[in-house]
Amino acid sequence: MSTQPDEFALIAELFAPLAASYPGALGLTDDAALLEVPDGQQLVVTVDAMVAGVHFLPDDPPDLVARKLIRVNLSDLAAKGAVPFAVLLAASFPTDVSMAWLTTFAAGLKQDVESYAIALIGGDTVSTPGPLTLSLTAFGRVEAGRALLRRHAQVGDRLWVSGTIGDGALGLLAAQGGLLDLSAEHRDALADRYRLPRPRSLLGPRLVGVARAAMDVSDGLVQDLGHLCRASGVGAVVEADKVPLSAAARAVVAADQSRLATVLTGGDDYELLFTAPREGTDLLLTLARETDTSLTEIGCITAGTGVTVLDRDGQAVLLPRQGWRHFRGEPA
Amino acid sequence: MSTQPDEFALIAELFAPLAASYPGALGLTDDAALLEVPDGQQLVVTVDAMVAGVHFLPDDPPDLVARKLIRVNLSDLAAKGAVPFAVLLAASFPTDVSMAWLTTFAAGLKQDVESYAIALIGGDTVSTPGPLTLSLTAFGRVEAGRALLRRHAQVGDRLWVSGTIGDGALGLLAAQGGLLDLSAEHRDALADRYRLPRPRSLLGPRLVGVARAAMDVSDGLVQDLGHLCRASGVGAVVEADKVPLSAAARAVVAADQSRLATVLTGGDDYELLFTAPREGTDLLLTLARETDTSLTEIGCITAGTGVTVLDRDGQAVLLPRQGWRHFRGEPA
Repeated sequence: MSTQPDEFALIAELFAPLAASYPGALGLTDDAALLEVPDGQQLVVTVDAMVAGVHFLPDDPPDLVARKLIRVNLSDLAAKGAVPFAVLLAASFPTDVSMAWLTTFAAGLKQDVESYAIALIGGDTVSTPGPLTLSLTAFGRVEAGRALLRRHAQVGDRLWVSGTIGDGALGLLAAQGGLLDLSAEHRDALADRYRLPRPRSLLGPRLVGVARAAMDVSDGLVQDLGHLCRASGVGAVVEADKVPLSAAARAVVAADQSRLATVLTGGDDYELLFTAPREGTDLLLTLARETDTSLTEIGCITAGTGVTVLDRDGQAVLLPRQGWRHFRGEPA
Repeated sequence: MSTQPDEFALIAELFAPLAASYPGALGLTDDAALLEVPDGQQLVVTVDAMVAGVHFLPDDPPDLVARKLIRVNLSDLAAKGAVPFAVLLAASFPTDVSMAWLTTFAAGLKQDVESYAIALIGGDTVSTPGPLTLSLTAFGRVEAGRALLRRHAQVGDRLWVSGTIGDGALGLLAAQGGLLDLSAEHRDALADRYRLPRPRSLLGPRLVGVARAAMDVSDGLVQDLGHLCRASGVGAVVEADKVPLSAAARAVVAADQSRLATVLTGGDDYELLFTAPREGTDLLLTLARETDTSLTEIGCITAGTGVTVLDRDGQAVLLPRQGWRHFRGEPA
């Protein structure tokens, strides 16, 4: 292969092996892919775009960029209770991209395609004079009529999150060379969470029939919860000191209380936020053990509208912003 | 709405109306969309990316950019015999994009969503410091096991194309201010073909059971036919003087015979290229009448490999290049 990559050689050498497990991908040599959906199941589809310098750092390792691209989409599927099975990639590569970069990028795709037992079933690779721009469409399956939707929250539901909140946003600061008062170990742990989300692909499908409403937390807990409330026509109360923090995030907030706002409103968590009736609590705690996932009750769904965050004294916490607005590329 | 567009307002005002006809789009207010596939049908999916300055001219009217984006994808579905029903949009808009631009872009989407009876079922809008970059995933349905694939050509099949070939590539030259020896009427007709493809969405599904192999011509007739031949393990002969040209393209070639190579290898035709057994000819001519589409036999499928183009004296035509390579952004 020449050092100047060629579209068709690139697809055949780097990407076609990722399609081998899925016959409907047609070896990535046709205009489209064919998908089967078993009787009684529904297809769940989502797309996310990522731009170098906006959604990841331009010098992030290419394999991690590829894996983040897959994982942010799998997080959306997990939030709907869907089991992922396929992805389509549209990639606009800068004209000076090297074969070394592309090879490492494809290796990252391969790693996660295998980890999550999915296939790359098609795509489009083009050239851009601008920054690397990627979009991935992800396909999952869920029993028909059973997907977890944002609109299903009910007044009185308890509010839960998986894992820990705030690591992604703090990780971006760490990856950019900030948070220098923190130990190197904590900085590395946070930066890793920013660069490599952990979609809750095992937990999500297990929440079907247990959770009522669900979504993934990607633009900041408070803002995302606001979207869930609007979709359901309800309000929510979050008890700030119940929001689960990692050891590194606890260290950040202990050193500077104002960072609590970053935790509650920063993006890139890729945890699941969901509601469940109070009588579902025991089942959820069992699920947490079986999937080796921490699940934490952080508040409840109320009548009314909007999200209220309370401190340990029951006082409303005022937040300078609610979350991340992708389109403006700035905090909202 | 403020003149500074906001992601959520943008989606609610401009894009959500395009989702209204499809309940599984969830009003564009959830993490993902839900798709039903009727029993006995298969889903056909494709994605195409377009970058300003590469796949369309930066000052092309935004509504035409939107419509081209939809149409290039519907062309892929038509080539598989699929009936389109939904699209997902991932859009990276430049930070200085105006509400006027976005409104016209959305109006273009709306026009073609309605024309082709499809729905926008989801997407992602982000901000980019680079050029406008769009990717669209399109969904169609076909009777299970009946999709038209590139790999089904057989030796002895006749080779057919819909419409006329070369107008897209000549239209790019016209849109860039070239072909000045041509009448303004012909230049406008060609530029229009470049800016607004006509996917063969009615014809494609009618070819199921009649055609054997099929694909759409988007990267140049000769190169694309080469892909079809490789996928089927066959060769092909094209008789150059049978390739159907529009009046404008005929005028270009009459004035400069060397432009025939542009016609045969230029991209952006978005016509269907397909093979059919000789006994299917009468049925195809009936289909042509019923769908008001010109269909022209241009050659045949042979044993061996590769594409041979013959002139009217039966001599092989040597072409300086085979077609468009998107990834290099240059002719191949």
